[in-house]
Amino acid sequence: MRRLPERGSYDRATIYAILDEAFVCQVGFIDSGQPFVIPTAFARIGDRVVIHGSAASRMLKLLSTGAPACLTVTLLDGLVLARSAFHHSMNYRSVVVLGPAREIGDPAEKARALDAIVEQIVPGRLGHVRGASERELGATRVVAFALDEASAKLRTGPPVDDPEDYGLSAWAGVLPLRLAALAPEPDPRLAAGIELPAHVSGWRRERGRGWAWSRR
Amino acid sequence: MRRLPERGSYDRATIYAILDEAFVCQVGFIDSGQPFVIPTAFARIGDRVVIHGSAASRMLKLLSTGAPACLTVTLLDGLVLARSAFHHSMNYRSVVVLGPAREIGDPAEKARALDAIVEQIVPGRLGHVRGASERELGATRVVAFALDEASAKLRTGPPVDDPEDYGLSAWAGVLPLRLAALAPEPDPRLAAGIELPAHVSGWRRERGRGWAWSRR
Repeated sequence: MRRLPERGSYDRATIYAILDEAFVCQVGFIDSGQPFVIPTAFARIGDRVVIHGSAASRMLKLLSTGAPACLTVTLLDGLVLARSAFHHSMNYRSVVVLGPAREIGDPAEKARALDAIVEQIVPGRLGHVRGASERELGATRVVAFALDEASAKLRTGPPVDDPEDYGLSAWAGVLPLRLAALAPEPDPRLAAGIELPAHVSGWRRERGRGWAWSRR
Repeated sequence: MRRLPERGSYDRATIYAILDEAFVCQVGFIDSGQPFVIPTAFARIGDRVVIHGSAASRMLKLLSTGAPACLTVTLLDGLVLARSAFHHSMNYRSVVVLGPAREIGDPAEKARALDAIVEQIVPGRLGHVRGASERELGATRVVAFALDEASAKLRTGPPVDDPEDYGLSAWAGVLPLRLAALAPEPDPRLAAGIELPAHVSGWRRERGRGWAWSRR
């Protein structure tokens, strides 16, 4: 992924669409001078992104203090196969959000954030499962990144080769990639007679739905 | 992804296998006190991981000075759908490698690193394309992370619910996920008569091949 200034984008709709299609982010933070990058689930709610973890998690504790942080989301769309090794690339869409994050302490807001994370991963799931208990809420820490300092970067389209390389005999083009679901694997302890629901059988990576703090 | 100490693993074979199946990593570094997380391609070569970029790239320049850094690879294997919102999780395999990285200056070693990155993404590609010219090599910076300080973390298997929740009527299980290739899209400028090669039509995410500094 080479540096092409025109790949940068700060359009809010683009940023939202990328965030809404993903559900795993990479959180960067510093502990004793050492940067760490840790994958975790997230949800976008309005103009914020929320993540959660154990109240005892080192990362969540650190983020809740307002420490410098970064949250990056990457969607991989395809392999760009050029005629030269040098011009190989990837089609992707990414968003980088700069912290600091802020802890969400209000229990109702916290419950909505946890709901949103479940729904961002599997839309429609929430109506089928037991919601969080007070004990579970208490054992969980939630922090939010405002989308004030967020930028998107993307590459699309075919390879761009050097003019003299178009005469080479190499196959060139894009191999599109997608995160696909395979056949669902029922829990070995699943009770007889419980049918596979549509929110599982119909799961797709492409969604682009929003979520709002007011929504349940 | 909750904290379960038993998810941590430092087995070298596990770490290699995760790295060899992936080709995108997330690099964490600090610039003026702010952590950044940037996605980029990588390859494992023996006991090192290499990344590359423009010689003018801020990130690569910074890494080449031996600044503190982190390189994280995440493979998403499935959505873990429990009977309670709280016990939802993901099956995944991740590796965290701590820097600092070191610049690879030797032109021959650098060329091999660039070869390895192409081959990590599309095994078999290298024999079909024009190799890097001296000018291209000069415009590229390559840095390597030693795998001395690397750890793996993973979750596998069905959901783990609270005992009293097994009686609920929710469908529970795992929705396996896989990065899949769709139909290849030939470059609009592809010359007539160039057939789709097997390394493109047969591309799979699952590979697990190694690469060695001595290999061409």
